[in-house]
Amino acid sequence: MSQGAKGTAQLSAGVILIGDELLSGRTRDINLQQIAEFLSPYGIPVLEARVIGDEAQLISDTVQDFSNRFTYVFTTGGIGPTHDDITADAVAAAFNASIDIRADAFELLRHHYAKTDMEFTDARKRMARIPEGASLIKNPVSTAPGFQIENVFVMAGVPMIVRAMLQDVGPRLQTGAVIHKREVPGPGLQEGEIAKRLGQVANDMPDLSFGSYPYYGEEGSGVNLVVRGTDLEAVIVAEKQLFQIIKHK
Amino acid sequence: MSQGAKGTAQLSAGVILIGDELLSGRTRDINLQQIAEFLSPYGIPVLEARVIGDEAQLISDTVQDFSNRFTYVFTTGGIGPTHDDITADAVAAAFNASIDIRADAFELLRHHYAKTDMEFTDARKRMARIPEGASLIKNPVSTAPGFQIENVFVMAGVPMIVRAMLQDVGPRLQTGAVIHKREVPGPGLQEGEIAKRLGQVANDMPDLSFGSYPYYGEEGSGVNLVVRGTDLEAVIVAEKQLFQIIKHK
Repeated sequence: MSQGAKGTAQLSAGVILIGDELLSGRTRDINLQQIAEFLSPYGIPVLEARVIGDEAQLISDTVQDFSNRFTYVFTTGGIGPTHDDITADAVAAAFNASIDIRADAFELLRHHYAKTDMEFTDARKRMARIPEGASLIKNPVSTAPGFQIENVFVMAGVPMIVRAMLQDVGPRLQTGAVIHKREVPGPGLQEGEIAKRLGQVANDMPDLSFGSYPYYGEEGSGVNLVVRGTDLEAVIVAEKQLFQIIKHK
Repeated sequence: MSQGAKGTAQLSAGVILIGDELLSGRTRDINLQQIAEFLSPYGIPVLEARVIGDEAQLISDTVQDFSNRFTYVFTTGGIGPTHDDITADAVAAAFNASIDIRADAFELLRHHYAKTDMEFTDARKRMARIPEGASLIKNPVSTAPGFQIENVFVMAGVPMIVRAMLQDVGPRLQTGAVIHKREVPGPGLQEGEIAKRLGQVANDMPDLSFGSYPYYGEEGSGVNLVVRGTDLEAVIVAEKQLFQIIKHK
């Protein structure tokens, strides 16, 4: 089925997760999930995500491509003070924007380090590099700001900072048709037992999206059935049908 | 820095994670991490991953693109018995291969359901749809096989099944230059304090990849320094330098 409920996705988002550590397996990403959960009440479905390494050209190309294809683009990672933090420059290049240390970002950082008695090193000054024409995204965790340029929101990689930055991003977003979701647990069930009836329900209610998600664990296996759509009443009708499927499997 | 150690990546992998549930935030993916960790001792770096929904054309296009760009491609998700399990057909389409219920896969499933006293429903028979010319990938968890077609390995979405399927995939892979990794913890440190010296070390040892990964948690914050490369001796020399950086920050 298509992402989100059919026929409602005027708004859309693409997510670009940047960092070698995500591709090497060192780090398990959680930012895609938290961005998707954050956007859900705004009615902005994430339609695609990419995980790419710290490579300037690939970051630039991907940002350009996503900026054209989605209403909003969110990037995470690569805006810290070290040699492999190249996201800001790569995003600037994607928009042919110049980039340099900018006074407002510099002032935020200078003030932060003065207050905390830490040295405002050259490496830290790099974090004030902001593309021309961008607006800052607040970072209440560690001060170094993210930025928005056109429809692209450039955020840190550390999950706690992403969470905080999203709070500053929220008010800038349009709101689309909110997608309602209901999940019906089927412990002990198998997909093969309910697939036919689930397919029939999905066929009968083409404006909704249906999914079934099997799980296997130490505490047993089962299937969770999920229905999603913008029409709350229809979603609730469907939820009842999912309960029936599980009851009469 | 570029993924993996520079100048060694003859072999490469791309990962395609398929499923609306990953984009909606319902499910946090773990398959990218476990595939990357599995491939690491083979010397096969993952160069890119994509998360896409259950959409036939997009799956086809992405598989085709990745198959051309990487030595190996791994997909997860969408090979179960329900209406939204369309990966097998979409992958067949990517290679212009016909697809139908295949005798060997059918026989595996028939035997499994006979043994377990569960009904071999039409929905379950769909899981025997295998593209022409593909070889099966064993699934000791729930029997329904994955398959390999050309350089593409099509696996389930359930992490436990992926883990099991990788065991059957392993012997089919070439081995590249293994990438060694050392990680040096810097509790209490900040990136801005070590960025300059880390950049110098990275500059001095251009055949290795260096990364720094800040963390913030309830038990305090810090930075972990990582070095990766195919030359084990050089990696160990670099590890010592990372220890020096942290000691003399």
